[in-house]
Amino acid sequence: MEEVTVFQYNLVYNALSFTMATFAAATLFFWLQRSQVGPNYKLALTITGLVTFIAAYHYLRMYQSWTESFEVVNGAIELTGQAYNRAYRYVDWFLTVPLLVIELILVMRLSQSETIKRSVLLGGAAALMILLGYPGEIQDEVGLSRFIWGALSMIPFLYIVYALVSGLSKSISDQPQVVRGLISMARWVIVGSWLFYPVVYFLPFVIPMDSGAAYATVEVGYTIADIIAKAVFGVLIYVIAMRKAEAEGTAATTTAAAR
Amino acid sequence: MEEVTVFQYNLVYNALSFTMATFAAATLFFWLQRSQVGPNYKLALTITGLVTFIAAYHYLRMYQSWTESFEVVNGAIELTGQAYNRAYRYVDWFLTVPLLVIELILVMRLSQSETIKRSVLLGGAAALMILLGYPGEIQDEVGLSRFIWGALSMIPFLYIVYALVSGLSKSISDQPQVVRGLISMARWVIVGSWLFYPVVYFLPFVIPMDSGAAYATVEVGYTIADIIAKAVFGVLIYVIAMRKAEAEGTAATTTAAAR
Repeated sequence: MEEVTVFQYNLVYNALSFTMATFAAATLFFWLQRSQVGPNYKLALTITGLVTFIAAYHYLRMYQSWTESFEVVNGAIELTGQAYNRAYRYVDWFLTVPLLVIELILVMRLSQSETIKRSVLLGGAAALMILLGYPGEIQDEVGLSRFIWGALSMIPFLYIVYALVSGLSKSISDQPQVVRGLISMARWVIVGSWLFYPVVYFLPFVIPMDSGAAYATVEVGYTIADIIAKAVFGVLIYVIAMRKAEAEGTAATTTAAAR
Repeated sequence: MEEVTVFQYNLVYNALSFTMATFAAATLFFWLQRSQVGPNYKLALTITGLVTFIAAYHYLRMYQSWTESFEVVNGAIELTGQAYNRAYRYVDWFLTVPLLVIELILVMRLSQSETIKRSVLLGGAAALMILLGYPGEIQDEVGLSRFIWGALSMIPFLYIVYALVSGLSKSISDQPQVVRGLISMARWVIVGSWLFYPVVYFLPFVIPMDSGAAYATVEVGYTIADIIAKAVFGVLIYVIAMRKAEAEGTAATTTAAAR
């Protein structure tokens, strides 16, 4: 990596700390509010909180790794020689990305067999996508290996997009009217926020990405994509669960509208 | 920054530690008592505790950053070269300030559509206010840039004040008699404690603020404003939730008045 300015260093530092706080708060929110959604949606909220919990842990580790990689000497940033550990992101995604698609499937409350089938297929594809991307990420240079692993990783990615956009349409139209729009929005939040990751992965083939500015942009970009894919998506799952539980009469609250 | 005395260093040090303990204790209070308010107010108390949880985290980080910025050498304070990270305050406000106005809206228990509308408008304005203030805060000098960003930040601030003071009056008069005064007080606590922040922001235009005394005053002042805006305000929200739940017959306790 080339030189990182104090501004870039602080930007990433603050972004990592901010995101850790966001995920920790989101986890507590999902698990506290889990008591309110009625028994059929508790599993969905348990997993929604697990995703942000795992992410909070990895953002804490990334924050530590970032501060250990650099030191401020006379107002300039110097490398300590300890490399920033990018593997934390892949380890995090390997755990959380399959769980994210399972959240969406669970909150839809499909039949048991369909829930299992879709969870295994979509969750398995999500895990495979991360597994195939990682060997390309750790190549020393931006070359054929990175490209091939990335291209292989795109196969499960495109399968997931296809399954969410096309395969889920029938099931969504069977959902109660009150949540149909929200569930459709949730799958587009997945597709939209996930698109950021392959863009970053393939960007080095187009423009050199070893400047401090590019490095900081990628870190902040991943961070924003993670917040949308996990915390914002999780709040959507929570709202869907509440609305469905209310419609089914199993929510703990009485709706203000029903008064 | 100019010289900080040992007294000033210790004052800020103790204020940051005190506030961290206050927010951690407040968080536990809100979440423990959440079980007592009846289902309709649990979401308000979940979020009240989230605000103080996020603040406790940032005060811990500020405390660490403060102790890493200075060292005591032969009874005098010297800079270590690592700057005190003021961004933690803005990062904290970016998360907590929108949640604070949402607390107030939730405890009022308006209709679902009005709750969503007011949360989005007021929460969005609060986030925008913080976003616009930060670029001015990090300018190297007290000049036109700081002034313009600050002035832009005042637009959403004034909108929030207007919406709380005028826009909420009708809804407050629809609240049960027993909490009308408390809810009105809660909005004035928001307006009053928030006024401190723009005053500090614009003060450097009037008097030089780079002395150790001014620096310590600002840190302690922010700390007091934060305690009022988050913990004291949160206790008000809790009392309102309890009173309303009692009036609706959904509180876990029986009211002393009813015995």
